[in-house]
Amino acid sequence: MVVFSGDLDKAIASFIIATGAASMGKEVTMFFTFWGLNILRDPAIHVSKSGMARLFGWMMPKGADKLHISKMNLAGMGTSMIKRIMKQKQVDSLRQLMQRAKEMGVTFVACSMSMDIMGIRREELLPDVEVAGVASYLAEAEEGNLNLFI
Amino acid sequence: MVVFSGDLDKAIASFIIATGAASMGKEVTMFFTFWGLNILRDPAIHVSKSGMARLFGWMMPKGADKLHISKMNLAGMGTSMIKRIMKQKQVDSLRQLMQRAKEMGVTFVACSMSMDIMGIRREELLPDVEVAGVASYLAEAEEGNLNLFI
Amino acid sequence: MVVFSGDLDKAIASFIIATGAASMGKEVTMFFTFWGLNILRDPAIHVSKSGMARLFGWMMPKGADKLHISKMNLAGMGTSMIKRIMKQKQVDSLRQLMQRAKEMGVTFVACSMSMDIMGIRREELLPDVEVAGVASYLAEAEEGNLNLFI
Repeated sequence: MVVFSGDLDKAIASFIIATGAASMGKEVTMFFTFWGLNILRDPAIHVSKSGMARLFGWMMPKGADKLHISKMNLAGMGTSMIKRIMKQKQVDSLRQLMQRAKEMGVTFVACSMSMDIMGIRREELLPDVEVAGVASYLAEAEEGNLNLFI
Repeated sequence: MVVFSGDLDKAIASFIIATGAASMGKEVTMFFTFWGLNILRDPAIHVSKSGMARLFGWMMPKGADKLHISKMNLAGMGTSMIKRIMKQKQVDSLRQLMQRAKEMGVTFVACSMSMDIMGIRREELLPDVEVAGVASYLAEAEEGNLNLFI
Repeated sequence: MVVFSGDLDKAIASFIIATGAASMGKEVTMFFTFWGLNILRDPAIHVSKSGMARLFGWMMPKGADKLHISKMNLAGMGTSMIKRIMKQKQVDSLRQLMQRAKEMGVTFVACSMSMDIMGIRREELLPDVEVAGVASYLAEAEEGNLNLFI
């Protein structure tokens, strides 16, 4: 599964599919690229950067709790509504879904080329995230029987 | 096929692929989740809701005729242009595509978890729509030879 | 691979995956539909059109160099930042990626129905682009072992 998007709703969908598949005994690899990298950023880590990498780092959401929904965000109102409803309905939050995915053995891979373009360094990402290139994704995808681009 | 998007253009693309595949004798299941649920809302049904479910129900497009395109919408102008052109070129409208898909035996499944989050009830959706969870989608996807996330 | 999106970032991702797969010896077909057609428009060609086809032609980006990123575009600033960074990091530009893909034998197919709706004519597209319908895509997809909708 390629996670290109950094929207909260799409991130939730991707982790629901990933944990669902893992719970059915499937081996799951999530390949995070472009905006999807923001999902993996560790909010506790501060790295000093310069130039455009700094600007990008500052403009992009830092980790799962900072993402916005893709529609009806309305200055954050839609996002907080969705989060409130999910809590109320006792649906796992994105962070809980990520935690569950990790416990179930889902592999998280960050795209090295996207990291380079966006100026994101290894130490900014959550621990247990692997870094690899597109060739590695393609090799995995070839063996998979479900491939999605989200 | 997962239909996550509720944009008119992506909905049209998904039904063109679905009816195309069905006409080639394939078994097709469309799994509607998040914004995609709006495509299945029946405009003739009014359900009284309260709180956030009501607000969401009111803010989201109610059925295929109310969707907007994802780009160049420009306060609805782009959307009505696309619809006018499709009519002029005698391309089926989204509602006609949905009708054809149903006649061809395409299965429509609404994601139960998304319905719960968005406060959409079974009776608001078109008849002939099944309701199921992500496990059911994954079981179907495993057997499919074409899986898309739209 | 279906390329529905005409966003710069998604176009880059699709060509990185396509050239990656081609370099691994795979046969790759990219099927461009809706906004994705804009990637294939030849900026050097001027076609006189009338009515809505003209308006659409004028509003949509004309070729790979005119695309915008899907997030943080900020009146073009984000787009030019991404392009500058890619140059600085010596990552191929979209136009170079397209060139490489063609040299590697990747097949570019434009969706005939989308062309009709958007009023895009064959002569506006880059040479070496084939034109075909959705049935042709589905026939190809059936044989593929990696299908994505981008």
